[in-house]
Amino acid sequence: MSKPLILHPDRLFPVHATTRAIARRLYAEVASLPIVSPHGHTDPSWFAHNHNFSNATDLLIKPDHYVFRMLYSQGISLEALGIRQHKNSIPQPSPRDVWGIFASNYALFRGTPSRQWLDHVFATVFDIDVALDTDTADYYFDTITEKLQQDAFKPRALFERFNIEVLATTESPLDNLTHHEAIQNSGWHGRVITAFRPDPVVDPEFEGFIDNVHALGQLTGENTSQFAGYLNALRTRRDYFKQFGATSSDHGHPSPFTADLCAREKENLFQHVMRGPVDAPTAELFRGQLLTEMAAMSLDDGLVMQIHPGSFRNHNQTIFEKFGRDKGADIPIPTEYVRNLRPLLNKYGNDPRLSIIVFTLDETSYSRELAPLAGHYPCLKLGPAWWFHDSPEGMRRFRQQTTETAGFYNTVGFNDDTRAFLSIPARHDVARRMDCGFLAELVADHRLDEDEARELAIDLTYSLVKNAYNL
Amino acid sequence: MSKPLILHPDRLFPVHATTRAIARRLYAEVASLPIVSPHGHTDPSWFAHNHNFSNATDLLIKPDHYVFRMLYSQGISLEALGIRQHKNSIPQPSPRDVWGIFASNYALFRGTPSRQWLDHVFATVFDIDVALDTDTADYYFDTITEKLQQDAFKPRALFERFNIEVLATTESPLDNLTHHEAIQNSGWHGRVITAFRPDPVVDPEFEGFIDNVHALGQLTGENTSQFAGYLNALRTRRDYFKQFGATSSDHGHPSPFTADLCAREKENLFQHVMRGPVDAPTAELFRGQLLTEMAAMSLDDGLVMQIHPGSFRNHNQTIFEKFGRDKGADIPIPTEYVRNLRPLLNKYGNDPRLSIIVFTLDETSYSRELAPLAGHYPCLKLGPAWWFHDSPEGMRRFRQQTTETAGFYNTVGFNDDTRAFLSIPARHDVARRMDCGFLAELVADHRLDEDEARELAIDLTYSLVKNAYNL
Amino acid sequence: MSKPLILHPDRLFPVHATTRAIARRLYAEVASLPIVSPHGHTDPSWFAHNHNFSNATDLLIKPDHYVFRMLYSQGISLEALGIRQHKNSIPQPSPRDVWGIFASNYALFRGTPSRQWLDHVFATVFDIDVALDTDTADYYFDTITEKLQQDAFKPRALFERFNIEVLATTESPLDNLTHHEAIQNSGWHGRVITAFRPDPVVDPEFEGFIDNVHALGQLTGENTSQFAGYLNALRTRRDYFKQFGATSSDHGHPSPFTADLCAREKENLFQHVMRGPVDAPTAELFRGQLLTEMAAMSLDDGLVMQIHPGSFRNHNQTIFEKFGRDKGADIPIPTEYVRNLRPLLNKYGNDPRLSIIVFTLDETSYSRELAPLAGHYPCLKLGPAWWFHDSPEGMRRFRQQTTETAGFYNTVGFNDDTRAFLSIPARHDVARRMDCGFLAELVADHRLDEDEARELAIDLTYSLVKNAYNL
Repeated sequence: MSKPLILHPDRLFPVHATTRAIARRLYAEVASLPIVSPHGHTDPSWFAHNHNFSNATDLLIKPDHYVFRMLYSQGISLEALGIRQHKNSIPQPSPRDVWGIFASNYALFRGTPSRQWLDHVFATVFDIDVALDTDTADYYFDTITEKLQQDAFKPRALFERFNIEVLATTESPLDNLTHHEAIQNSGWHGRVITAFRPDPVVDPEFEGFIDNVHALGQLTGENTSQFAGYLNALRTRRDYFKQFGATSSDHGHPSPFTADLCAREKENLFQHVMRGPVDAPTAELFRGQLLTEMAAMSLDDGLVMQIHPGSFRNHNQTIFEKFGRDKGADIPIPTEYVRNLRPLLNKYGNDPRLSIIVFTLDETSYSRELAPLAGHYPCLKLGPAWWFHDSPEGMRRFRQQTTETAGFYNTVGFNDDTRAFLSIPARHDVARRMDCGFLAELVADHRLDEDEARELAIDLTYSLVKNAYNL
Repeated sequence: MSKPLILHPDRLFPVHATTRAIARRLYAEVASLPIVSPHGHTDPSWFAHNHNFSNATDLLIKPDHYVFRMLYSQGISLEALGIRQHKNSIPQPSPRDVWGIFASNYALFRGTPSRQWLDHVFATVFDIDVALDTDTADYYFDTITEKLQQDAFKPRALFERFNIEVLATTESPLDNLTHHEAIQNSGWHGRVITAFRPDPVVDPEFEGFIDNVHALGQLTGENTSQFAGYLNALRTRRDYFKQFGATSSDHGHPSPFTADLCAREKENLFQHVMRGPVDAPTAELFRGQLLTEMAAMSLDDGLVMQIHPGSFRNHNQTIFEKFGRDKGADIPIPTEYVRNLRPLLNKYGNDPRLSIIVFTLDETSYSRELAPLAGHYPCLKLGPAWWFHDSPEGMRRFRQQTTETAGFYNTVGFNDDTRAFLSIPARHDVARRMDCGFLAELVADHRLDEDEARELAIDLTYSLVKNAYNL
Repeated sequence: MSKPLILHPDRLFPVHATTRAIARRLYAEVASLPIVSPHGHTDPSWFAHNHNFSNATDLLIKPDHYVFRMLYSQGISLEALGIRQHKNSIPQPSPRDVWGIFASNYALFRGTPSRQWLDHVFATVFDIDVALDTDTADYYFDTITEKLQQDAFKPRALFERFNIEVLATTESPLDNLTHHEAIQNSGWHGRVITAFRPDPVVDPEFEGFIDNVHALGQLTGENTSQFAGYLNALRTRRDYFKQFGATSSDHGHPSPFTADLCAREKENLFQHVMRGPVDAPTAELFRGQLLTEMAAMSLDDGLVMQIHPGSFRNHNQTIFEKFGRDKGADIPIPTEYVRNLRPLLNKYGNDPRLSIIVFTLDETSYSRELAPLAGHYPCLKLGPAWWFHDSPEGMRRFRQQTTETAGFYNTVGFNDDTRAFLSIPARHDVARRMDCGFLAELVADHRLDEDEARELAIDLTYSLVKNAYNL
């Protein structure tokens, strides 16, 4: 007989009765607040077309690199999981078979946030009350897949059911935002906005960079063979993105390196990177200069900058060649912020109109670099625990290591940063529970009064993110 | 109606009843022990002149970069806070207005040690029993400012009331220590001693370095145009500092790099740095050689060395130019100790007469480098959690990450390292509470007997610091 | 009167009653499971000869660098502790006198794992019921030394009493494994196996490297003046080690750097390192290439690779010259895995037949690099908290910082990695207690069901290590 699936109402709360009671009271204040999701990777076409999702596997496994990387790490091939290859030479396994592999290996996820998110989805979205294992695999597959055919499980219906106040997607400057336009024109009131992610046209190491810059010129009518025209083209696209709700730009550079070159150096560097393959330091210099240019544009147009550095992308060459990007093979690297951000900060860092939200995959920078920087510069705010660290222990370390130097008010609430639409409520719920637990501990050892903690719980859940992203 | 201000007697203690009871018992043993403050930045003129402090703002906000950096990070200008500029072109805001800004932004400090220190000062030094907020701003300003006019709030009276057994200030070799001399000649029994901080004459990148070295020569009658005379001048000043109680030197280098050059290389390097601006590696080499020279002098004269590395000073160029040093814009950087300290350690590290206390702003070095080094070399001891990490969570991490490898007895008790005189009892109280809490946890899970914990609590509070600093 | 020595049955368990009760129940399932020790440094001659150990000091102090480094750090000379020097010019202190020094300084170990291991040995192996201090020093020395003369305290008897299922030692390829042969031929059923540690013949900076490679040629009849013959010689020795139970190789490089050179570059590099002293980058390149060669051999012969990087060996030059290796002066350094392991991983990392267990002394790599790598690559597993981090707090940090990304099933159970034979049960007991405590916390805040935790407790104690090391 299978085990029941139960989401305990006190999950993730501190175990001591006094502290748990405080955490419960704080959580009660924020549990039902709307979800504000200012940074993520859901597909806007879902909300434009509002088609039903297909089946459990295509929705919950294949797009979720957290899930399939863990299976892969234990020797299960990506082919067996039906992950799409560049050349699909072999027959695809059936979604049901893939689900069966996943179910029979579900124990691998014990102790991971994926397990918590998935159980939350199973229990709250699909009303399943038995635990996932080999025996219940088919029941799960059938139940989920059947429900997905219902109207109540269409993207817009789920968006509303999830109580999402605003959801940001992320697009390239070359994207014409047709899905966002369709949403805007559809009369549906759901607020799905875009964010400006210029990596394909500002990173000389991005696949197709030169072509991308030419395409950017054609799209905007600017002369992108000169640096001035290139910057104008970027400005034009930023304005276009703002028409579809964008309040932020997002920068996924390998490092937070910034530069502040003079006009002639900038033109020369631009011509250099546009002539063809450049060495790594040149590419880094260009990306660094572009961050500074983006800060200048932010001062004009008010877009908030997000810097997401520190990932060694596509570390596994074989997997990249066969399956492409975002296959669970991006690995964090040590990341330095103090010297890297200085050129930008020395140019614009004291202007309170500028707003830069910095993230890290290198937790050592929390207490050493990021909290001291955010605790001084008016333009800097700290993004929440990110990606690998978007987990109970990761969130706890974030608060423990940043709060004493940066305070709570130099942080910006939670980002789910996910492709996994159904997991959004689960992820926000984990963040709310962990923040309430952290605050409860400060109350329990008398570092904070409970009325202050209550105010903070609401700020961390709702107010800070709204303000930081101008939403 | 304003909230009461209450310092809970169990603040910062572990929440579990058993553990809290142990912590309480341990704390009872150490709560009233005298304060030994072997490293800090209070102004000796306070104790020489014993004039009254002026007002709440000038005493508690303007000199405290922990306080005004947090306000600055949220967009409040330093001008609005009355921070003194090099050229005071604009009119200064009134102290009362500055206090009002501070009070109405006091929520920014939630969860920070500044909040805890300040509340402790308000409650215990000024007997205030309502919480600080916009409504109580004037009451606070008036109460504090009025009390500061009383005899009981003069520097010496507070020193005595705080039960300070010894307080070290920090001076440059170019300082003639007139204030210390005045204290010594005053008949007052308070023990205020100096510490020897030679950065202005050993760091080629220090403002005015060459002039400083010339001044050092004039002050000592040594020929500081030769390395030998320069070293003699330093020796002479160390002896002079010892007359005013100095038992330690202090070194605020960017890194703990040390060097061990031969005599000819040293002379050449000295001539090089004295000729004028040098590149960064040359400056680093000179500083590194000087650390080794200082260790040699310590072997002769018994001064304990303190090494305080790892701060990128004056990161914000605009703020530095307008307002100068120590304006909350010093940011920690990654700091390596193993290769950097080796030249010095290989020369003198096995001599048990030498005593070097190492600090860090890079917490990653605790378990990886510093605890293993201090757990081996007879000359090395670990300074406490420092600066940004001088906080409940920072202290907890320090003990959790150093104790198992270095033990308790290779640490040296607490340093308050502060300019904020009134906060000294608060800071020591936080350290005592956190140490008692940490020990209580070791007792509660049976890693330590309570009688051992009691002995340790006293050692960590009092005995270790007295021994380590020869006080 | 001396204090009693009591091992509390709940030691190291979480203090909260609910959590402690869960931890107790989990621990009850694993407390008496056999010990599997796949990596360590005990002396196989003990089990070959089965002679009695000599006395308390020679068994418990002199070989244990954890113990004497702490005493040394507090100014007690290694000479006074009877540590053997290269030239023994001074008379050796008596074992009893050394024991007396140790006993009277036992307080130094408060809060360290050595204290816990030693108390466990005293209480469970020698049935001592008073605490060690100056007064009980002689009683301890006599009791231990007398018991060591009994048959029940001979190495094989202790091995059986400790319920050790398998114990791996570590040998150089130049070792002829006579002790292992003697054990195999003795008829004794104890499973003592070797592990292949090729550092002396693959690290150009190892003392006597060139001679070692020549000796390797003579031992195997291969022509080790060519790279092909050298590789053959290594293969031959690996096969020889497999005859004596080896299931793993072990690599103690300064860094986890790997290389993937072409055939001609490899031959040239080999000729270069065999000609004599090489610079540091060349040595590093050779070691890095050899790791890749070892991975290739593992694919053929099935030996599991262990990589133990990140120690700056023999940091204290004076101690090294007088006393040699392993004298408590090895200090961890920052260690990078992402770029360093990539050449090897890109060549063999997707082959599920390959198994590489990676260790670290740099805890910052847990969440940033190692968990993400092990959570993706099929060949990678994470070794447990190692050396300085083989302690309650170190183990807690390991689980807290790796589990959410790598899960439990990309880890390999516990390694004691010790020379201190008698401490093996103590060390495994600490690991079991800490794992049960960690799991209990996940159960108590509802991240895991207790039945899953029970399964995990057994896996972490027994199943994972058996599988990972093919035992």
